[in-house]
Amino acid sequence: MSSLAAAIAIGLAALGAGIGNGLIVSRTVEGIARQPELAGRLQTTMYIGVALVEVIPIFALVIAFMVM
Amino acid sequence: MSSLAAAIAIGLAALGAGIGNGLIVSRTVEGIARQPELAGRLQTTMYIGVALVEVIPIFALVIAFMVM
Amino acid sequence: MSSLAAAIAIGLAALGAGIGNGLIVSRTVEGIARQPELAGRLQTTMYIGVALVEVIPIFALVIAFMVM
Amino acid sequence: MSSLAAAIAIGLAALGAGIGNGLIVSRTVEGIARQPELAGRLQTTMYIGVALVEVIPIFALVIAFMVM
Amino acid sequence: MSSLAAAIAIGLAALGAGIGNGLIVSRTVEGIARQPELAGRLQTTMYIGVALVEVIPIFALVIAFMVM
Amino acid sequence: MSSLAAAIAIGLAALGAGIGNGLIVSRTVEGIARQPELAGRLQTTMYIGVALVEVIPIFALVIAFMVM
Amino acid sequence: MSSLAAAIAIGLAALGAGIGNGLIVSRTVEGIARQPELAGRLQTTMYIGVALVEVIPIFALVIAFMVM
Amino acid sequence: MSSLAAAIAIGLAALGAGIGNGLIVSRTVEGIARQPELAGRLQTTMYIGVALVEVIPIFALVIAFMVM
Amino acid sequence: MSSLAAAIAIGLAALGAGIGNGLIVSRTVEGIARQPELAGRLQTTMYIGVALVEVIPIFALVIAFMVM
Amino acid sequence: MSSLAAAIAIGLAALGAGIGNGLIVSRTVEGIARQPELAGRLQTTMYIGVALVEVIPIFALVIAFMVM
Amino acid sequence: MSSLAAAIAIGLAALGAGIGNGLIVSRTVEGIARQPELAGRLQTTMYIGVALVEVIPIFALVIAFMVM
Amino acid sequence: MSSLAAAIAIGLAALGAGIGNGLIVSRTVEGIARQPELAGRLQTTMYIGVALVEVIPIFALVIAFMVM
Amino acid sequence: MSSLAAAIAIGLAALGAGIGNGLIVSRTVEGIARQPELAGRLQTTMYIGVALVEVIPIFALVIAFMVM
Amino acid sequence: MSSLAAAIAIGLAALGAGIGNGLIVSRTVEGIARQPELAGRLQTTMYIGVALVEVIPIFALVIAFMVM
Repeated sequence: MSSLAAAIAIGLAALGAGIGNGLIVSRTVEGIARQPELAGRLQTTMYIGVALVEVIPIFALVIAFMVM
Repeated sequence: MSSLAAAIAIGLAALGAGIGNGLIVSRTVEGIARQPELAGRLQTTMYIGVALVEVIPIFALVIAFMVM
Repeated sequence: MSSLAAAIAIGLAALGAGIGNGLIVSRTVEGIARQPELAGRLQTTMYIGVALVEVIPIFALVIAFMVM
Repeated sequence: MSSLAAAIAIGLAALGAGIGNGLIVSRTVEGIARQPELAGRLQTTMYIGVALVEVIPIFALVIAFMVM
Repeated sequence: MSSLAAAIAIGLAALGAGIGNGLIVSRTVEGIARQPELAGRLQTTMYIGVALVEVIPIFALVIAFMVM
Repeated sequence: MSSLAAAIAIGLAALGAGIGNGLIVSRTVEGIARQPELAGRLQTTMYIGVALVEVIPIFALVIAFMVM
Repeated sequence: MSSLAAAIAIGLAALGAGIGNGLIVSRTVEGIARQPELAGRLQTTMYIGVALVEVIPIFALVIAFMVM
Repeated sequence: MSSLAAAIAIGLAALGAGIGNGLIVSRTVEGIARQPELAGRLQTTMYIGVALVEVIPIFALVIAFMVM
Repeated sequence: MSSLAAAIAIGLAALGAGIGNGLIVSRTVEGIARQPELAGRLQTTMYIGVALVEVIPIFALVIAFMVM
Repeated sequence: MSSLAAAIAIGLAALGAGIGNGLIVSRTVEGIARQPELAGRLQTTMYIGVALVEVIPIFALVIAFMVM
Repeated sequence: MSSLAAAIAIGLAALGAGIGNGLIVSRTVEGIARQPELAGRLQTTMYIGVALVEVIPIFALVIAFMVM
Repeated sequence: MSSLAAAIAIGLAALGAGIGNGLIVSRTVEGIARQPELAGRLQTTMYIGVALVEVIPIFALVIAFMVM
Repeated sequence: MSSLAAAIAIGLAALGAGIGNGLIVSRTVEGIARQPELAGRLQTTMYIGVALVEVIPIFALVIAFMVM
Repeated sequence: MSSLAAAIAIGLAALGAGIGNGLIVSRTVEGIARQPELAGRLQTTMYIGVALVEVIPIFALVIAFMVM
């Protein structure tokens, strides 16, 4: 039961992080393709956004390690 | 049963936070690409919005730690 | 059974709050990017809307603590 | 069984209220961004609409407290 | 079994009422933002529509009280 | 088993009626916002349509009372 | 088992009839808002269409009464 | 088991017929609103289409009566 | 078990046939509304298409009768 | 178990064939409405396409007969 | 168990092949309607594409025969 | 259990390959219809893409044969 | 249980790889159809992207072999 | 139970990584097709984005190896 719980926690977290990060990075690429002179600022925002998205999945990772 | 409950709580929270933050940050990146002079104000709104979105998932995290 | 119930309550609440707040904040960011002079009024509406969205999830949080 | 029932009731109510309120408030923010002189009237309508949406979830909350 | 039935009835009703009312009120807000001089007539129609949507969920509420 | 059946019947009926009525009333509000001089005729059609949509959910309500 | 069967039959029928009638009536309202001089002919078609949609749900209602 | 089978058969049939007929009739109403002089021909096609859609659900109805 | 199998077969077939025929007939009605002089040719194609769509559901019907 | 297997096989096949053929024929009708002089060539392609779509469902039919 | 496995394999394969072939052939018909002079080349590509799509479903068919 | 595993593996693989190949080939047909002089280069890319999509499903096929 | 696990792992991986690669290659074909002189550079990016997408499914393949 | 957990973890991770990477790379290809002179910068962003997306799935991989 413990390994199954770890699998569900990390699996849903990977799904959520994949969708969230995919949305952010694809919009950033689109934005750089339009206005290349803003590449630095857009990437900075992208890094912050990705870090914010990753907070909960990383705790899910911690919990998955803990329940094992 | 306890570890499975923690996994469901943190997994659904990660999914919800991923979708919500992904929407917010991707719109912010798009907004900065259009009007770079508003980057500061848009990022401020983004930080507030992300913080508001994270409230319930963080309590889900607390509950996941508590039931373990 | 009690911990599973708490996990379902807080998990669905986090999902609902994530979607609802994500919609509101992303529209607010978009609105500020269009008309930066309205930033204050839009953020005020955003705060009220987010508070209204959070009412039911916060009671879900209360119930999740109570059933544990 | 009683705590599981309370969790399902409040969880679905939070999901429904999150989606409904999210639609209403995001449109209101969009409307204010277009015509800032109507901010008062739009917010009044928003309050009424949110109150109407919350009626059934609040009874779900009552039932969730009752079955516990 | 009785409390679970009440939870399912009120939960689905809250979901249905949330989606239905959300559609109606958000369109009303959009309509007022376009033509503010029609605000009264649109709100009247909104009240009637919301009342009509609420009929079945309120009976669901009655049934939820009855099965408890 | 009887109370669960009543809950499923009234719950699905409330969901169906919520979606159907939401579509009809929101389009009516949109129509009045475009052409206010047709408000009476559109509302008449709305009443008839809502009544037609409610036929089956009301029988679902009757059945839900009967199986209890 | 018998009451559960009746609930499933009438519940799915109410969902199907709600979606179908909602599509038809909302398009009729939209059509009248565009061309008010055709209101009679459009309503006639609406009545026929709604009647045709209701045929199978009404038999579902009959079966739901029969299995009880 | 027999009544449950009848309920599933007629319920899915009602859902399918509701979606199919809803698509056909709503497009017919839209077509008449555009070109009222073709009302007769469009209605004829609508009758044929609805009859063709109803073939399988009516046999589902027959089977639902037979398994009872 | 036998009646349940018949119900699943005919129910899924009715759902598939409803969606498929609904797509075909609604496009035909739309086509006739644009170009009424092609009504005959379009209806001929519609008949052939509907007949082709119905092939598998009718065999599903045959199997549903056979397993009873 | 054998009749249930036949029902699942033919039911999913009918659903798949309904969607696939519905897409093909509805586009063909739309194509003929645009360019009636190509009716023959488009119908030829439609026949080939429908035949290709039907290959796997017909084998599903064969298997459904075999497992009975 | 063996017949159920065969039914699942061939059923999912029919669903996948139906969707895939439906997309390819409907686009081919649309392409021929636009540029009839390319009919031969487009049909050649269609044959190749359909053959490539059918590879895995046909092996699913082989496996369905083998497990029986 | 072994045959059921083979069926699930090959069934999901057929579904995935059908969707993936359907997207690729339908876009290729659309591209050739626009610019027939690029037919060779587009088909080459299509062959490579289809081969890349087929890699994992073919291993699924291998595993399905192995578990039998 | 071991063979079922291998089937689930490789099946979900095939589904994910099919969707991901389908998106990438179909956009590449569309890009080449627009600007044929960039065919080389686009294909290079496509190869890298497909390789990156395949990383996790290939490990899923490895795990599927390991659990057998 | 252990192998099933590994399969679920790596399967959901492959699905999430496939969708996320597919979004990013397809937008990058589209961006290069529009502005080929930015190919280097866009690919750099793509590499970073893909690496960020892969973080959680790779930990899912680690957990899948650990629970075996």
